[in-house]
Amino acid sequence: MREIVVIGIGAGDPDQVTLQAVKALGRADVFFVLDKGDVKQELVDLRTEILSRHASGQHRVVVGRDPERDRTTSAYVEAVDDWRRRRADVCAELIAANLGADEVGAFLVWGDPSLYDSTLAILDDILARGAQSFAVEVIPGISSVSTLAARHRIPLNQVGRPVQITTGRRLAQAWPDGVDDVVVMLDAQTAFSAHTDQDADIYWGAYLGTPDELLIAGPVSEVAPEIEKARAEARDRKGWIMDTYLLRRRS
Amino acid sequence: MREIVVIGIGAGDPDQVTLQAVKALGRADVFFVLDKGDVKQELVDLRTEILSRHASGQHRVVVGRDPERDRTTSAYVEAVDDWRRRRADVCAELIAANLGADEVGAFLVWGDPSLYDSTLAILDDILARGAQSFAVEVIPGISSVSTLAARHRIPLNQVGRPVQITTGRRLAQAWPDGVDDVVVMLDAQTAFSAHTDQDADIYWGAYLGTPDELLIAGPVSEVAPEIEKARAEARDRKGWIMDTYLLRRRS
Repeated sequence: MREIVVIGIGAGDPDQVTLQAVKALGRADVFFVLDKGDVKQELVDLRTEILSRHASGQHRVVVGRDPERDRTTSAYVEAVDDWRRRRADVCAELIAANLGADEVGAFLVWGDPSLYDSTLAILDDILARGAQSFAVEVIPGISSVSTLAARHRIPLNQVGRPVQITTGRRLAQAWPDGVDDVVVMLDAQTAFSAHTDQDADIYWGAYLGTPDELLIAGPVSEVAPEIEKARAEARDRKGWIMDTYLLRRRS
Repeated sequence: MREIVVIGIGAGDPDQVTLQAVKALGRADVFFVLDKGDVKQELVDLRTEILSRHASGQHRVVVGRDPERDRTTSAYVEAVDDWRRRRADVCAELIAANLGADEVGAFLVWGDPSLYDSTLAILDDILARGAQSFAVEVIPGISSVSTLAARHRIPLNQVGRPVQITTGRRLAQAWPDGVDDVVVMLDAQTAFSAHTDQDADIYWGAYLGTPDELLIAGPVSEVAPEIEKARAEARDRKGWIMDTYLLRRRS
């Protein structure tokens, strides 16, 4: 039977792959890549480095064109659903055309496939269409959230307390109910700036695990402008930014 | 300067260590182990296997006696604080007696040091006492939460939605506000059983990543008794259990 392995490859340091991931990389016949056509050349280079270090050498890489997401609509979930469907169309074609009987295909996922990544939903969608079948295996990876905590040398939770992982879009609306510790991903703006009235610390990181890594921590009321400035400068310089942060209210 | 590396070693599969962890294991002069004196021989064996595969061979292992935690009190946070202080006493002595100038010491942490683990707090406590100094580095690991999601082949979050990581103690009191997706750790009882009235699925796993791994998923209203039974039987058979689960309310 055909098999597809979804491999978490860590947050940006090629040494963040696990031995389990190394083995999975080595047994894949074909790697599926969706090309966004944007300027994150460093990420392409990193992926290439990981493949050249761990893939079998007999492997193939097939590239599909990642469809555009509608970022103009306010209907976020619908826009993401639509985008996923169109990505599934592209992936279904790639898989049908390139994954032979008894072959192993692989998708590489930055961080951990379990957090704010659509690869598993895309594969479920393709399987639900019924036109083709394959087994799915998932290799967990080090997420940017774990990396953020490690680089700041902090736990994500306070003793016996919960931690919530959410999006910038949600944090911009309100601090979540019932938690003092909030990890924010996918923050295209700087939603923490809406919470500088809180008695809270922020632990921020960008390009985690890479040579360009930036780390800033302190009371959000004091360091928010510094983070905004560092973030804007870095994005201008590199053309893209990936960042995440923990807001910790003193309890 | 002396250095202590806190190394996440994954949830139970020795292949879940990262290449970064392998390097850190190889450069440690001394490994610090707190021995709980209980029956989790498999975990001791797993740790031994990881060291025999990746430690330098010139390393030392020093073992301290892990103090008992007061499990009779209802003052949970105070009991944990007190336990941490006494663990810090033990670790401070171990480090002072065994970590030479310019040496690298290491603590191995199951899963990821950022989630419900006290090693970082213990090291902070020791440093705050001022009697000794060392640099601290943290190597993130694959958490049981990531492993749970990978084994069930699911993401932890729904599209654009938050996920909360909390404790069994808290879930037993109430379903957390504002989230449909709740990951539960440290559940000594079976707090999910208090929520069988919810229109929710549960994805449960025990001994994740090990040969004894157990996985059960389904509507919590239907599979809760099955999980309770499997959990009780496994604990009786092995003498201990480590499990975690995701509750996902249909939204």
